[in-house]
Amino acid sequence: MRPVSFSIDEEGPGLARAGVITTPHGSINTPAFVAVATKADIKGISVSQFKELGVQTVIANTYHLYLSPGEELVDKAGGVGEFMGFRGPTMTDSGGFQVFSLGEGFGKKLSKFLPQEQAPESPAVSAASGQGERRETPVPVIFDEDLATSHGKLAIVDEEGVSFTSHLNGTLHRFTPERSIEIQHKLGADIIYVFDECTSPAAEHGYQKEAADRTHRWAARSLKAHRGNIGKNNRQGIYGIVQGGRYADLRIESAREIASMDFDGFGIGGSFSKRDILGILDKVNRELPKEKPRHLLGIGEPEDMFIGVAGGIDTFDCVLPTRNGRTGGIYTRHGKVQIPNAEFKEDFSPLDSECDCFVCRNHTRAYVHHLFRTKEMLGPVLASAHNIRFLTRLCERMRESILNGGFGEFRDSFLSSYKIR
Amino acid sequence: MRPVSFSIDEEGPGLARAGVITTPHGSINTPAFVAVATKADIKGISVSQFKELGVQTVIANTYHLYLSPGEELVDKAGGVGEFMGFRGPTMTDSGGFQVFSLGEGFGKKLSKFLPQEQAPESPAVSAASGQGERRETPVPVIFDEDLATSHGKLAIVDEEGVSFTSHLNGTLHRFTPERSIEIQHKLGADIIYVFDECTSPAAEHGYQKEAADRTHRWAARSLKAHRGNIGKNNRQGIYGIVQGGRYADLRIESAREIASMDFDGFGIGGSFSKRDILGILDKVNRELPKEKPRHLLGIGEPEDMFIGVAGGIDTFDCVLPTRNGRTGGIYTRHGKVQIPNAEFKEDFSPLDSECDCFVCRNHTRAYVHHLFRTKEMLGPVLASAHNIRFLTRLCERMRESILNGGFGEFRDSFLSSYKIR
Repeated sequence: MRPVSFSIDEEGPGLARAGVITTPHGSINTPAFVAVATKADIKGISVSQFKELGVQTVIANTYHLYLSPGEELVDKAGGVGEFMGFRGPTMTDSGGFQVFSLGEGFGKKLSKFLPQEQAPESPAVSAASGQGERRETPVPVIFDEDLATSHGKLAIVDEEGVSFTSHLNGTLHRFTPERSIEIQHKLGADIIYVFDECTSPAAEHGYQKEAADRTHRWAARSLKAHRGNIGKNNRQGIYGIVQGGRYADLRIESAREIASMDFDGFGIGGSFSKRDILGILDKVNRELPKEKPRHLLGIGEPEDMFIGVAGGIDTFDCVLPTRNGRTGGIYTRHGKVQIPNAEFKEDFSPLDSECDCFVCRNHTRAYVHHLFRTKEMLGPVLASAHNIRFLTRLCERMRESILNGGFGEFRDSFLSSYKIR
Repeated sequence: MRPVSFSIDEEGPGLARAGVITTPHGSINTPAFVAVATKADIKGISVSQFKELGVQTVIANTYHLYLSPGEELVDKAGGVGEFMGFRGPTMTDSGGFQVFSLGEGFGKKLSKFLPQEQAPESPAVSAASGQGERRETPVPVIFDEDLATSHGKLAIVDEEGVSFTSHLNGTLHRFTPERSIEIQHKLGADIIYVFDECTSPAAEHGYQKEAADRTHRWAARSLKAHRGNIGKNNRQGIYGIVQGGRYADLRIESAREIASMDFDGFGIGGSFSKRDILGILDKVNRELPKEKPRHLLGIGEPEDMFIGVAGGIDTFDCVLPTRNGRTGGIYTRHGKVQIPNAEFKEDFSPLDSECDCFVCRNHTRAYVHHLFRTKEMLGPVLASAHNIRFLTRLCERMRESILNGGFGEFRDSFLSSYKIR
């Protein structure tokens, strides 16, 4: 028996399905929104509120937890779920996205196609000190300081893996598929992901193909590292990741490659533009085995979730509910609004008139507006909580509608009055 | 029947008592910690968590709510309790403390004893626009710009009231006892306070006496303004405030003066040093009518609460649990600790081993340490929630110990292992 399994309760229309993902820490009714817990917390939200907010599961981040507090500490705590005080199912992504993207704000440049002869050596990196933020990296210098200096802060991809600088302090680090899996074993989530190369949606066909091919080789290596070195009594499932950017041919090819490997489920890289989603998902998911769960990485706006579910997606994650929430962006039945705007100053209605969350039950827009205007931390806290509930509830309603055969009707009804900005 | 009444369940030792304050929005079992909700929120804590944190009542701030969102808006919302979504008993302080203290960080100087002939006129100030932060003050300029400029930002006390600059934007405002009560009527809390002059504990006897005498005259005017202009069907009680700094003779005189007026309860200004508290409280409270509740303003550390309760205090408020919490200061059975300190990195015990709060039930010190180290907003949120519960629970236990005759024993036992820093 695999640690992660999936059963389908009802299907249709199209590729839509309502199912249940079973993990060692409980089950997830799908479609489901997976709340983002990058650093082992949903920003501003206590685990004591997860249940009432409908949070079934969270996805934490390998890159961030590796940098701080370190996977050794999380392991000592009993894994990421225990560490954060959440007893339900957890996921960790592989860190691929962050390795490639997070340095940008710090001047990180991405060097690709570094000729093999110039590539840094690929030592058996063992940086596991577990002692706080990795300010003094114990990693052997895997490219020399002169190179790092001449390039500024950067990420260098080679066949073996990626060398990168920390967004926290510029120290040098290296991830390989094997290293990412090793870290994820220590983080101990129920569902882990292969280490992939996450490309920009703007990248061209040639590079997308190169990257996708490499991602497939890394997927095989990740899988082998997982199956060959499973800790904790085989209590973790592993998802492969389909890449290929916005090119349908590459996506299909990627789906076939990844589907041919023995994964417990599949992630679909969210590296494409909004208008490509539907066409691509449909094609990708027709290649993936129906009996395994599918997660759409990093995408989870209401309009996208309807498309995703119709296209065969079971779970979503997205930072937007908390990121928007922190600056006062609120999901409502009629679209997103900016609650700090003057129009809400004397609006004594709830954030969303149909929402059942504790923010909407207890508070008015005028109050949350006041909290933002007076810079009270409770503003972001309440806005984030509401947004999380808005998306988990939307998934609950999508599930219900699939179970009772009314998905299309629910979608049309919802989207007809939901203004997409 | 007065809107606010008090009954005593048990007395002793000394002046200690366990009682019940009854208000239009419910009752408060005493001794009680009154959580500070300056801007109509306990910083970082949702009202949906009040009950489990033992929060029976909160104290909001007249000065802050007057500046933003304005008392008219709070009135429209149905009063401060409705505005913040809390259905229990509420208090507002009069703004006296903030008027005198809050400008300091902005270069506000306090001009006292301004000769009457130089004092600003005392217009019937009506600044009630209710339109957001009062950036463009509609208050008639009550001292001329030249004076304000020559003094920098300032607060000017005269017999009639105080002219002051906003800490937000330097605009000019004026509070008188009548104005403070007018605003507090609109804020609509169950318990309101007279407008007082809050002196520095360092002020000398001569000035303390002047200020205390003025505070008595302001108390009589506040009381008259309250009784003569009660809105909302007499649903608000009013507390007088005893001042006098650290001088026992002035405190006794002040207590006698204030006790002679027809208040529903009494606040005792917290303007004295820690070591003066016991001697002064005992003397003050012997002058105050036993059958009315007594609140110690702005003081609420565990060691102070034991002294306060023994000296006849029923309720306390203090910003420290949330202020300390925001920077990682945590109350524990053995004293306060700084959870971001390295010593807690791998400490997998709860914040306080005896605490029943949701933070201690769900999380470890290592986790909260991690949240502070990685600058996650949830760190301050959890630390504040725990600290609030620590103090409300301490009050609950003090009440229990009075009811069962074991207050002295409980105090000795608690303080014997509580390290005061």
